[in-house]
Amino acid sequence: MKIALLGFGTVGSGVVEVIAENQESINKRAGSPIEIKYILDKRDFEGQPINKLIVKDFNSIIEDEEVEIIAEAMGGIEPAYSFAKAALARGKSFVTSNKELVAKHGAELLELARQNKTNFLFEASVGGGIPIIRPLNQSLTADEIYEITGILNGTTNFILSKMKNEGRTFEEVLKEAQELGYAERNPEADVEGYDACRKIAILASLAFGEHVNFEDIPTTGITKITEEDMEYAAQMGCSIKLLATCQKQEGGIFARVAPSLISLEHPLAMVNDVFNGIFVKGNVIGEVMFYGKGAGKLPTASAVVADIVDAAKHKGTNIISFWNKEKLELKDKGQVKVSYFIRVQKDREDINKCIEAIFGKVTEVKALANEYAFITDVQTEATFSEKMNALGDIKVKSKLYFIK
Amino acid sequence: MKIALLGFGTVGSGVVEVIAENQESINKRAGSPIEIKYILDKRDFEGQPINKLIVKDFNSIIEDEEVEIIAEAMGGIEPAYSFAKAALARGKSFVTSNKELVAKHGAELLELARQNKTNFLFEASVGGGIPIIRPLNQSLTADEIYEITGILNGTTNFILSKMKNEGRTFEEVLKEAQELGYAERNPEADVEGYDACRKIAILASLAFGEHVNFEDIPTTGITKITEEDMEYAAQMGCSIKLLATCQKQEGGIFARVAPSLISLEHPLAMVNDVFNGIFVKGNVIGEVMFYGKGAGKLPTASAVVADIVDAAKHKGTNIISFWNKEKLELKDKGQVKVSYFIRVQKDREDINKCIEAIFGKVTEVKALANEYAFITDVQTEATFSEKMNALGDIKVKSKLYFIK
Repeated sequence: MKIALLGFGTVGSGVVEVIAENQESINKRAGSPIEIKYILDKRDFEGQPINKLIVKDFNSIIEDEEVEIIAEAMGGIEPAYSFAKAALARGKSFVTSNKELVAKHGAELLELARQNKTNFLFEASVGGGIPIIRPLNQSLTADEIYEITGILNGTTNFILSKMKNEGRTFEEVLKEAQELGYAERNPEADVEGYDACRKIAILASLAFGEHVNFEDIPTTGITKITEEDMEYAAQMGCSIKLLATCQKQEGGIFARVAPSLISLEHPLAMVNDVFNGIFVKGNVIGEVMFYGKGAGKLPTASAVVADIVDAAKHKGTNIISFWNKEKLELKDKGQVKVSYFIRVQKDREDINKCIEAIFGKVTEVKALANEYAFITDVQTEATFSEKMNALGDIKVKSKLYFIK
Repeated sequence: MKIALLGFGTVGSGVVEVIAENQESINKRAGSPIEIKYILDKRDFEGQPINKLIVKDFNSIIEDEEVEIIAEAMGGIEPAYSFAKAALARGKSFVTSNKELVAKHGAELLELARQNKTNFLFEASVGGGIPIIRPLNQSLTADEIYEITGILNGTTNFILSKMKNEGRTFEEVLKEAQELGYAERNPEADVEGYDACRKIAILASLAFGEHVNFEDIPTTGITKITEEDMEYAAQMGCSIKLLATCQKQEGGIFARVAPSLISLEHPLAMVNDVFNGIFVKGNVIGEVMFYGKGAGKLPTASAVVADIVDAAKHKGTNIISFWNKEKLELKDKGQVKVSYFIRVQKDREDINKCIEAIFGKVTEVKALANEYAFITDVQTEATFSEKMNALGDIKVKSKLYFIK
């Protein structure tokens, strides 16, 4: 079974390494020997054994009838999207770790794969090496999924874990993460939640069967989390995590990415450092969670190679999946029911009365000096916004979703 | 797609309930409507809608060409084993939640399924609803697995969690678990570790590709764990869990079931109450963990029905799996390297010197009154046994594996 690899960066070189390292068992599981025939990359790799596989032109790959599987690890929408379409149209399987591509064009590429009796596989696009796409597609088939909540970004989880354990500021820890190579020089995609947003869009589309536009998902990052927020969390027996979630709620489906307070009793609270955790609720299975390294060269390559094996085993047959092109209309954000943890400046003695006058009954939380802190009842976002506006000159220091 | 169900007990009735509840999505995922044509049970269910499906004779099921999948939820070796062989020999898929059957005859039944281009599926036999068999078989295919360690028995985990949280004795908590229906009247299979032993034998066979005899796995239950052990665990920042493990160690593979001390930092430490957790290490993926309800009517039925869906999708093709009939010779127990936590009676002032004279350097642990407690270096079980014998009249109060 001849394959081609697009891109020889971190993940691409990991794929070469994994196939070399575990050749024997991989070939056994794939049912035939897997051989990399081409690697598409702009650069030359003089003196390295893979240099003889390097090609600069995608056409030499697509025109080669021997190549049955193409694995893409370039990232970004183009040219990955065009390459995927060309490969699938020719009946070649296309495997990718590219979350941007899958979030934007997943439904269309799955449909193209179906039409051409081939496969579009993307286990590595969410949760790195953690098996989640295949379990959702093939294991949780007896269930109606009604919630997926995940810690889907290792960089932000590393930052939040460090802030919690070491009482340091976001800026300090981000700098350290950048020095360690855990965060990019331009960290926006991670710390603003954009990466997690694409991943939850993919999971929501698979779980609910219709295409969720990632642009429709309200997304907040972790840049405004402070040491004081962390102190409150610890005192409340909670942890602050960047949670990406999609849930059925009173008929509609909502999704969001936002830093949230969860109880230390919640299985996701123990997902620390660069690890990811994906928590799934189904109507018969109850709660299950998948945990592991959500990024990194070898874990991600492990998922890409597992997809290559699956593509080899399913040559000529499409693996059913339930993500169709119809757009899933997410529930209006204002109608989603939520509970918030709020910190306000205690600029008057009767602040508790003011808050109660606006929010009704709240759960007061032991506060830092000159602050008043509380947890609201469950209410719609729209109602909550109105109440926040009614605060007038009372200064809000922080607000975080509170997950019961 | 007509199916037959063997046994209408807890799991069997759950299967009927799940198929009725999620009919639409299950049929969509299976690719054709799933219909229960027969239920084999000795009893009658007068007045219940399923009564018309009840048959008393397996022959009426096996002789019916329309029945393509048989799901077994009776438990025990016979007649389940004979039924499985008969079904597979006729090319019918056989799905089971029966860990005794799978641990004892899994290799043979998988082989029979291969020969007859049909499937023997057993996702529900380990970890209840948690997807673990299918991920091992189909997701972690790029990896060489070198360790699986699991909390595989919900009853014992419930008991240990209660003992830890409430400072109560094993006997007290067992009694409560029996009253709550979490433990059987005869709790031996759970509390002596026999249930976990069969489950780890199944996982080891799948991970390492050869048949692991469950009788070969050294198995210790939790009946001797005391409140004092729990106090030590808490003080050491550890938790006591009944761990079932199989690992590659210096070329050989060992397996065991035993109560063990693990650090609270270990992901398995947060698997509490009736939940199960299965921790897998691979040479490229690193660490992944699967978490969920390991037992119970609906979670187990969810896994059975997911297997039925898979069997329906793979009609006429065998799903490859790598558990063959060759027997895996486990590493000699004496050669396995281990570390122990030990408590001895402090019947002399220079007890630390005596211990050091026998064990060499040990890590002393802050002890209860009249006790001396320590952690040994890593050594073989054989060496450890010799040293324990050398203790002579020094009374050992407790010994537990210590997992680094």
